[in-house]
Amino acid sequence: MQDAQQQRIRLPELRNRITSAEHAASWIEDGMTIGMSGFTRAGDAKVVPLAIAERARAEQLKITLMTGASLGSDIDKTLTEAGAMSRRMPFQADPTLRAAINRGEVMYVDQHLSETVEQLRTRQINAIDIAIIEAVAITETGAIIPTTSVGNSASFAILADQVIVEINMTQSMELEGLHDIFIPKHRPQREPIPLMSAHDRIGTTAIMIPPEKIVAIVITQKEDSASTILPPDAETAQIAAHLVDFFKEEVRDGRLTNHLMPMQAGIGTIANAVMSGFIDSPFEHLTMYSEVLQDSTFDLFDAGKLDFASGSSITLSAEKSKAVLSDIGKYKDRLVLRPQEVSNHPEVIRRLGIIAINTALEVDIYGNVNSTHVLGTHMMNGIGGSGDFARNAYLSVFATKSTAKHGKISSIVPMVTHVDHSEHDVDIIVTEVGLADLRGLAPRERAQKIIHHCVPAPYRQMLLDYLSEAETRGGQTPHVLEKAFSWHTRYRETGSMLEETAVLKAVA
Amino acid sequence: MQDAQQQRIRLPELRNRITSAEHAASWIEDGMTIGMSGFTRAGDAKVVPLAIAERARAEQLKITLMTGASLGSDIDKTLTEAGAMSRRMPFQADPTLRAAINRGEVMYVDQHLSETVEQLRTRQINAIDIAIIEAVAITETGAIIPTTSVGNSASFAILADQVIVEINMTQSMELEGLHDIFIPKHRPQREPIPLMSAHDRIGTTAIMIPPEKIVAIVITQKEDSASTILPPDAETAQIAAHLVDFFKEEVRDGRLTNHLMPMQAGIGTIANAVMSGFIDSPFEHLTMYSEVLQDSTFDLFDAGKLDFASGSSITLSAEKSKAVLSDIGKYKDRLVLRPQEVSNHPEVIRRLGIIAINTALEVDIYGNVNSTHVLGTHMMNGIGGSGDFARNAYLSVFATKSTAKHGKISSIVPMVTHVDHSEHDVDIIVTEVGLADLRGLAPRERAQKIIHHCVPAPYRQMLLDYLSEAETRGGQTPHVLEKAFSWHTRYRETGSMLEETAVLKAVA
Repeated sequence: MQDAQQQRIRLPELRNRITSAEHAASWIEDGMTIGMSGFTRAGDAKVVPLAIAERARAEQLKITLMTGASLGSDIDKTLTEAGAMSRRMPFQADPTLRAAINRGEVMYVDQHLSETVEQLRTRQINAIDIAIIEAVAITETGAIIPTTSVGNSASFAILADQVIVEINMTQSMELEGLHDIFIPKHRPQREPIPLMSAHDRIGTTAIMIPPEKIVAIVITQKEDSASTILPPDAETAQIAAHLVDFFKEEVRDGRLTNHLMPMQAGIGTIANAVMSGFIDSPFEHLTMYSEVLQDSTFDLFDAGKLDFASGSSITLSAEKSKAVLSDIGKYKDRLVLRPQEVSNHPEVIRRLGIIAINTALEVDIYGNVNSTHVLGTHMMNGIGGSGDFARNAYLSVFATKSTAKHGKISSIVPMVTHVDHSEHDVDIIVTEVGLADLRGLAPRERAQKIIHHCVPAPYRQMLLDYLSEAETRGGQTPHVLEKAFSWHTRYRETGSMLEETAVLKAVA
Repeated sequence: MQDAQQQRIRLPELRNRITSAEHAASWIEDGMTIGMSGFTRAGDAKVVPLAIAERARAEQLKITLMTGASLGSDIDKTLTEAGAMSRRMPFQADPTLRAAINRGEVMYVDQHLSETVEQLRTRQINAIDIAIIEAVAITETGAIIPTTSVGNSASFAILADQVIVEINMTQSMELEGLHDIFIPKHRPQREPIPLMSAHDRIGTTAIMIPPEKIVAIVITQKEDSASTILPPDAETAQIAAHLVDFFKEEVRDGRLTNHLMPMQAGIGTIANAVMSGFIDSPFEHLTMYSEVLQDSTFDLFDAGKLDFASGSSITLSAEKSKAVLSDIGKYKDRLVLRPQEVSNHPEVIRRLGIIAINTALEVDIYGNVNSTHVLGTHMMNGIGGSGDFARNAYLSVFATKSTAKHGKISSIVPMVTHVDHSEHDVDIIVTEVGLADLRGLAPRERAQKIIHHCVPAPYRQMLLDYLSEAETRGGQTPHVLEKAFSWHTRYRETGSMLEETAVLKAVA
């Protein structure tokens, strides 16, 4: 064990910083801003955060918590329950924290994932006091080798006054060399990000910081929390099939080659299912330039469809995790993990010409997308990287099942109750019903396409009726304002968006 | 005259292409897509479009018209009245065309200004059949020297099958050398845009095309339409003063230097007034990296405040135009005009760290911005470049007067009826009442700041009442959906957003 630790902490002078999670947590003071590793449940610091929660149960200890994205290991839950969480950014996906956010108890700053460290670097938001970073190892020079995510870890460690490192002994040493840490310079010295292809390496394999900033090292044995995504079902398979058909047409029409363009897929069941749909497609030599690499990424590798995948984290199901992480060497020359500032950078996304596939919570007839707010008010997770990608993509796709709650909610509504992506940033809407190609269309034309291609009965007719009435009032984007949210208020009152007449027809 | 024309058409073999506007217009066929020069009334083709309209009065001739941005010379008006306009993109600002758009007669595709040529280049929208470009001159090699705007002219000319050039004899030959034409390569050969500072020159001074593509040359004598912006008034001066105070604090706090960062200012009266506010400010050696350069740009030059201005067009009032354009040599080493794809490119905006100042039509309590749609339905002008800048800026400012129509419309409402810029892209809201700094705040905090800093009585109390009721329903972004647009429906019914009780109080 002592030997194993020495292999993991290669700078001898740092070995005396090894301490308990409880002692490491004693560095945190009330009111501090803490930057933690972790992106979509991958590579999060796992024991010091829980020790902070433990302290917060006994004393006044409230922190602002910044991460890469969502955490696993019940960290958001435990910190929230302990009353330690006063402010959270830029993303979360925990039910307990979500409830506290929606009660107004935790101030949640939902941000584009590429932006947080830009705002930190320019001191436009509170500075990071302490960074807590999970690592595979610390190098001979004191540089930190991250585990299964990079996220914002590099900039957090660089910008923080002090750094606590969690060395995770369960993470394979083979992960070393997987990461590519590139940090843009401060302006006005900022130069182009020299990344011309998903597989380019432009940085270092570890996070370079002065080793004296590392104030504590904690040894851990806890694995990443497994992904919670569901396997593809009939509807997600239909969504994938519609998209594959669309891309076949694009290739036939000469707009894309059989390799398509580098692809991004959002986190979650639908995006994962869509990517799985490419396994049995005619496309080959695919590449991914994405945020989170999910099960489907490795299925595509194994199917010989995918040449390279760039991401900011690897988040897998329990089963896939065993197969992949224990044998990561097999994939290592086809993988790179980057800071989310680089994986999600508008500059790179625009240059590479990404096909961005993200999930919508709600879409309206003009193609505006709500990714975040249930009924316009209650936060689900957050915008994540969808805005970074959708705005700058070669092609911006939003996928959703056409209904939810056994048909009582239509995902396509007259007007979305919250806009994360305006119609300007949405090229394709796809549901299990079909696909609407909105490129080059005006709003009234978009409405016809979306309603006829993506919406099932009886909602289709309800939307056509709404549109007809709206058009009598005129406008570039016709609406009947006093009825625009009537579906949502009806759902709130009756438990269904369906009109009574539509329900009767459906029953008859 | 013949000599003057020879100076302007330096490739002798092109001189026999000189023809009348009527004859040039005969190249246009029904159903064609035409790309015309012109950006914010500057540098538009002025006589061939009117000849197209003339033809359309006598025969079936409908076109899709793409430009840089808005046109002058009543071109949009005349083409609309003649029934020649079937589809228009990516921006317009003409009352007659606007009315036709809002009646659903013209399909208007309102786009981010940086995107149109990306979509053309990848053939995701209809190809340009003929480009009609205003020029100062044609060079010895047949390259086109634009006049007062670059806009999309270069890519239109490069991508079109045929090009018609209007040589404008009233535009000074001194404009030669002002332009910097850089065209990104097709993907996957795309490289970084090598622009590291607003003053960098990275391209050619003329649009390089095979001269045989030039099928007609028309000689014109019409000047650009003058800018229609109004001079600063008491309220816009207050808006400017609040912003200057804010920047003073940023300098004091060490986040900015006295040179600030490169600035972008949207088109129009408010943005122009805000920039004029910097004349009597303590800031110096300012730079602009913007779209349209307005009167205030040259006032700032003359005041010794501005070192350099990069734009895509120069649009001036009649008076300023005389002074500046007749003596453009005086400013030439401090000016550059670029393709709008470069002036508005996310990559460059993010790299340079732009302070973006744009105008809002309507803002909601959470800082979502409507830039385009009156009462959520009727198009005003279009999103223009505001999305390119706001999303990628170092700091994104939206300015508006707090009320319109003599107080009967509040510019700050419970929920905007159309979202062009989501709260994620809005850092600062400023009205004549004051400035709300929203950086690092959650929606509930943003609402308090906006209501207390930007809204006058009696709307302030009305918004606080709405927010209180909304908060009882909970959520990250509390709303009362059935009342969210009640101010708009009240305006529609009564001609005022004020509640009767508020009106009575105001009268008492």
